[in-house]
Amino acid sequence: MPDEPARAARPARPRVLIIGGGFGGIDAARALRRQNVDITLIDRTNHFIFQPLLYQVATAALAPSDITAPIRWILRKQRNTEVLLAEAREIDTARRVVRVDDEMRELPYDYLIVAPGARHSYFGNDEWEPYAPGLKAVEDASEIRRRFLLAYEKAEKIEDPREREEYLTFVIVGGGPTGVELSGAIPFIAKKALHSEFRRVDTRLTRVILVEAGPRILPSFPEDLAQHATRDLADLGVEVRVNSMVTGVAADGVSIGSEKIRARTSFWAAGNKASPLGKFLGASLDNAGRVKVNDDLSVPGHPEIFAIGDLATLHYKGERQVPWVCPAAMQEGRFAAKSIIQDLRREPRKKFHYFNKGDLATIGRSRAIADFGRVKFTGWIAWVLWLFVHIMYLVGFRNRLVVFIEWAYSYFTYQVGVRLITDVERYKPPGD
Amino acid sequence: MPDEPARAARPARPRVLIIGGGFGGIDAARALRRQNVDITLIDRTNHFIFQPLLYQVATAALAPSDITAPIRWILRKQRNTEVLLAEAREIDTARRVVRVDDEMRELPYDYLIVAPGARHSYFGNDEWEPYAPGLKAVEDASEIRRRFLLAYEKAEKIEDPREREEYLTFVIVGGGPTGVELSGAIPFIAKKALHSEFRRVDTRLTRVILVEAGPRILPSFPEDLAQHATRDLADLGVEVRVNSMVTGVAADGVSIGSEKIRARTSFWAAGNKASPLGKFLGASLDNAGRVKVNDDLSVPGHPEIFAIGDLATLHYKGERQVPWVCPAAMQEGRFAAKSIIQDLRREPRKKFHYFNKGDLATIGRSRAIADFGRVKFTGWIAWVLWLFVHIMYLVGFRNRLVVFIEWAYSYFTYQVGVRLITDVERYKPPGD
Repeated sequence: MPDEPARAARPARPRVLIIGGGFGGIDAARALRRQNVDITLIDRTNHFIFQPLLYQVATAALAPSDITAPIRWILRKQRNTEVLLAEAREIDTARRVVRVDDEMRELPYDYLIVAPGARHSYFGNDEWEPYAPGLKAVEDASEIRRRFLLAYEKAEKIEDPREREEYLTFVIVGGGPTGVELSGAIPFIAKKALHSEFRRVDTRLTRVILVEAGPRILPSFPEDLAQHATRDLADLGVEVRVNSMVTGVAADGVSIGSEKIRARTSFWAAGNKASPLGKFLGASLDNAGRVKVNDDLSVPGHPEIFAIGDLATLHYKGERQVPWVCPAAMQEGRFAAKSIIQDLRREPRKKFHYFNKGDLATIGRSRAIADFGRVKFTGWIAWVLWLFVHIMYLVGFRNRLVVFIEWAYSYFTYQVGVRLITDVERYKPPGD
Repeated sequence: MPDEPARAARPARPRVLIIGGGFGGIDAARALRRQNVDITLIDRTNHFIFQPLLYQVATAALAPSDITAPIRWILRKQRNTEVLLAEAREIDTARRVVRVDDEMRELPYDYLIVAPGARHSYFGNDEWEPYAPGLKAVEDASEIRRRFLLAYEKAEKIEDPREREEYLTFVIVGGGPTGVELSGAIPFIAKKALHSEFRRVDTRLTRVILVEAGPRILPSFPEDLAQHATRDLADLGVEVRVNSMVTGVAADGVSIGSEKIRARTSFWAAGNKASPLGKFLGASLDNAGRVKVNDDLSVPGHPEIFAIGDLATLHYKGERQVPWVCPAAMQEGRFAAKSIIQDLRREPRKKFHYFNKGDLATIGRSRAIADFGRVKFTGWIAWVLWLFVHIMYLVGFRNRLVVFIEWAYSYFTYQVGVRLITDVERYKPPGD
């Protein structure tokens, strides 16, 4: 149990405050469900997002509601837990309170688990954001879907063939799993789903260009799998550009040094920055704003505070970086909860060990790569594995069933089910 | 065939321009699919909306994509038709062009079918709109859903019991089918779906007040069915206030004369006004801006222009007003198409006759009313009939299947599947 600050009375039940209802925060709350603690989980949205499928919302295959679930619904049976829709603004570690919302209402804690996630980073070029939105929240996915679908609507109305070509060109910046999955999904829709519906534009002429600054895509995967994915993308017609550092993003395209790729639609899948909440914790941060945590995931100098998920940086097995992926966040959430339980039982805390269950990425229909260390899969088998794992980990029976039906529908009809453009009038991309 | 204006050459194939991809516009286009005409259908959105189920999107039971379909997907097999995402701004009946979008690009026509639908009317009190949004477009439904769900999130955070009560009070203005369906859906969600998830607020204390200016709700239904619906609503706990003319709407409630109903959330389902496009047609309009059309649905003085659906007003059987409902719009769309075909065949046009297939309205789970003239149903039978008819008329196999699953899920679990609040931060209701 951490030292108590000078306060009047210690509450009978320790108050555990969790910031963030993502994979880490939810699993931390769940792991404390039978404990004699009062849990408050706050999030600035009302829903948990199944991040690995967010790109399918962005590419019109799934509806936002298919991959989200209300946080309070997930935790409804857990009587020691309350959920608040509130945005953490400041953490006061001396007074042990978190200030939320515009009113800066104070929520006290005895234990704090900080799991607010990350946003995308433009590496100091925030002026690029309006021209190349990233993909973290449901709103981001809706915005990408809107721009993706509107590009074809505009191309259909335009007479000038050069300008029309620019509307049929999509640049995706960043060759990680999100960039690869976005790039791989677009050709399928362009060539199969949309083709018969346009009278002036030939949607099969769609160009997708995946730009990666490093020497290869999917750096977190073994080299041979990444090569396989590169070939898969090439088969789909995606142009993969490695060793290409983006130096400018504007309404009419993306610059790579002196070269300009002319495109009216760009998406950003390169780099993350952690939540700004890290800077209230008095710990040293890495250059993406992540907290360098102790090996029990606590914040140095604050055994009562845990930073997890995209907010934390630490190494395991003495050397390897714990990756910022969903399974790691879930393991960290459960580990932080277990450390609190050990404190309450006056047992010593343990060291966090990351268990890598394997990595999966899909590259369009019937193609994927799977890395389980000694065993690797590619092609159709990896893709079926990918489908199975993602359906299995979805929250809620309704979501599993609806996603299964959407995928089956898409597989047999070559259609995507959610081609809805909303807020057409609101959408005026800058400089358009 | 209407008189040709002084233009250089008459095109080999008549150009039919349709404004609006709702029930009327889509059915007009479909009815012309085998004809020797070039059809252009324009809409300011990319999707057809199945209006009768829009209230279910507003109350979190269905996703927007479940009740919409891309217009170009619906018409994809019709090779004589092109679809453009474009907003009609002006109609120039002398030059026979429609000007669209900011650029005022001109689209020429030989025949014009104007089916732009309606918006809700605040009867000269447009300042009420921010406090009581109406329900016409998908964006409206998302906004209502956001306010409906956020009211509970706010109530959960508020300490003051009186203010909390105000957040648990919902006022629906207008006792037509939309107002009744909205009112009937809220208690089910409040009492069944949300109840176990809130720790401070008892969602069962939700108050729903349906305010109607006239002497009874559902004036388009026979009196006995409307009475039945009133009893059904009372059973659900909805307070029905008839003979109550709203005299003010603000952030903190709705005024009826000197009485103020204190409520933080109000929705508007009273009255429509037609699209402003009617005023370009040189015809006389009724006080809701609808065009008084000839009995072949053409605009007086313009046999080449048809106004249909919510834009048209006419009587049938010499006396009764054709109602502004989906089946009427569909019949009018097909009739306008047939009149064009008759012109091309140099046959005389006919008079439009509205065929009333019957009226249905649902009042929450397992309750509905159905009016087929001589035969009437109430209760569970009417409700099953309602379910069946609405599933049957949905566009697309995917939508039918997904809606069926959502309804089955909801029926057995007492849940609603789409409790997603997006754009929480964007939402700052005025004066809140």
